[in-house]
Amino acid sequence: MLTTPVALSRIRVVLSHPSHPGNIGAAARAMKTMGLSRLYLVRPKRFPDDEALARAAGADDLLIRAHCCDTVDQALIDVRFAYAVTARQRHLGPPTLPARAAAVELLARAGEGEVALLFGNESAGLSNDEVQRCQRALVIPADPAYSSLNLAAAVQVLCYELRLAAFDGAPPTPSTTVPFSSPPASHQDIERFYDHLQRVMIGSGFLDPERPRRLLPKLRRLFARAELECDEIDILRGLLDAIEKSACRSDIPQRRQSGPE
Amino acid sequence: MLTTPVALSRIRVVLSHPSHPGNIGAAARAMKTMGLSRLYLVRPKRFPDDEALARAAGADDLLIRAHCCDTVDQALIDVRFAYAVTARQRHLGPPTLPARAAAVELLARAGEGEVALLFGNESAGLSNDEVQRCQRALVIPADPAYSSLNLAAAVQVLCYELRLAAFDGAPPTPSTTVPFSSPPASHQDIERFYDHLQRVMIGSGFLDPERPRRLLPKLRRLFARAELECDEIDILRGLLDAIEKSACRSDIPQRRQSGPE
Repeated sequence: MLTTPVALSRIRVVLSHPSHPGNIGAAARAMKTMGLSRLYLVRPKRFPDDEALARAAGADDLLIRAHCCDTVDQALIDVRFAYAVTARQRHLGPPTLPARAAAVELLARAGEGEVALLFGNESAGLSNDEVQRCQRALVIPADPAYSSLNLAAAVQVLCYELRLAAFDGAPPTPSTTVPFSSPPASHQDIERFYDHLQRVMIGSGFLDPERPRRLLPKLRRLFARAELECDEIDILRGLLDAIEKSACRSDIPQRRQSGPE
Repeated sequence: MLTTPVALSRIRVVLSHPSHPGNIGAAARAMKTMGLSRLYLVRPKRFPDDEALARAAGADDLLIRAHCCDTVDQALIDVRFAYAVTARQRHLGPPTLPARAAAVELLARAGEGEVALLFGNESAGLSNDEVQRCQRALVIPADPAYSSLNLAAAVQVLCYELRLAAFDGAPPTPSTTVPFSSPPASHQDIERFYDHLQRVMIGSGFLDPERPRRLLPKLRRLFARAELECDEIDILRGLLDAIEKSACRSDIPQRRQSGPE
């Protein structure tokens, strides 16, 4: 897959009548984090605005390039498929999809031409008239007891879903490779570590060879789960060495003492 | 399913050192829209605060019930599994998962006990020390060219993923029973083990506090993978105790020896 899929650049985010410039800036930031760039504003109450700039952080370029329109129809010119983001099912609206399924569909549509996500005003949402200009309604699943997402938060969730859909759920971002991993330890290295560990356990008086209980099997189980690596074996055996030597240093007189016995 | 799954109520959202009260309010709102309710704040710069209340909208109840703590360790008391939300792969951190996979895993963990999502400061993120207190790092896939999600936007995305995982994901699989497994160790037990281990490492001369290299982070990484259980903590700390005492004991004869001889 491509780094930033072309489809993402075909998606317009249209904010209809946003009241708070902070939300416009935060929406721009949300878009940019997910690789979207085309912001349309229908009669924003205050724009341009310092608060929008502040909340956009490093996404001020999206604000500068934002299209300001007088009507939703203007913002949807040349769009082939539009999704109305609504908090609830509309009686007279288009078919409704949940966000994840809508994102997959929207991406596929973006392969064919311009598409848009239409968001309503913070308090009033979208009017029925606006929703009916769209081919789909889209709902972000939320707790029915309190389903009021902030406008920019809704933009963030949908742009995130779109990015994941664009990369088939697996964007080529951070691999799950484990930081500073070294090669897996070999069987014999692991066994030598257990021998060494057992020696220290006995030497310290923690393990009584006559009554071993299940201490060693339990520790084997622990380290087996961790799947020890070469470097880790080195560290653990280094520590065991140091413990033995420090005991020895203080032991030497002890052994001499027991010598004559 | 209609009700909020119990698992969601077991998830703590921990914000470490948040600078902007607006983000605290917006995070509370994001949580509540997805059915999460337990907010922990580690040394917030300004809290309580009018801006937090305003941005919380109808989620002010979460702010009122928020726990304010002095340290991340306090916020993680009794937590069995913690996820550090980071913008980038850490060289010294635990294994990293992308948000969606992490949400599924986290929800399954929440079926077993308390879990936490740990978010860092808006500018500085989480310190390495904070990340190393967690068993996993979690990354929200974003555009590598601009991956800076707003704090509350990140909370929204993850709470959304958790809600979907709670309702869509396969029910938590019965964990394969492991011979003599005991309950997972709590955060504070694990941290006390690390303290004890460090003491023995220094006492034996293996760890030079002036030149610690990366020994401790590497051992943290090993034991994080193993997901320590209560019994195992008991065994490991018992061994560390015995090592410390035997070092003392072997000191005693040395002293006695010098007397009679």
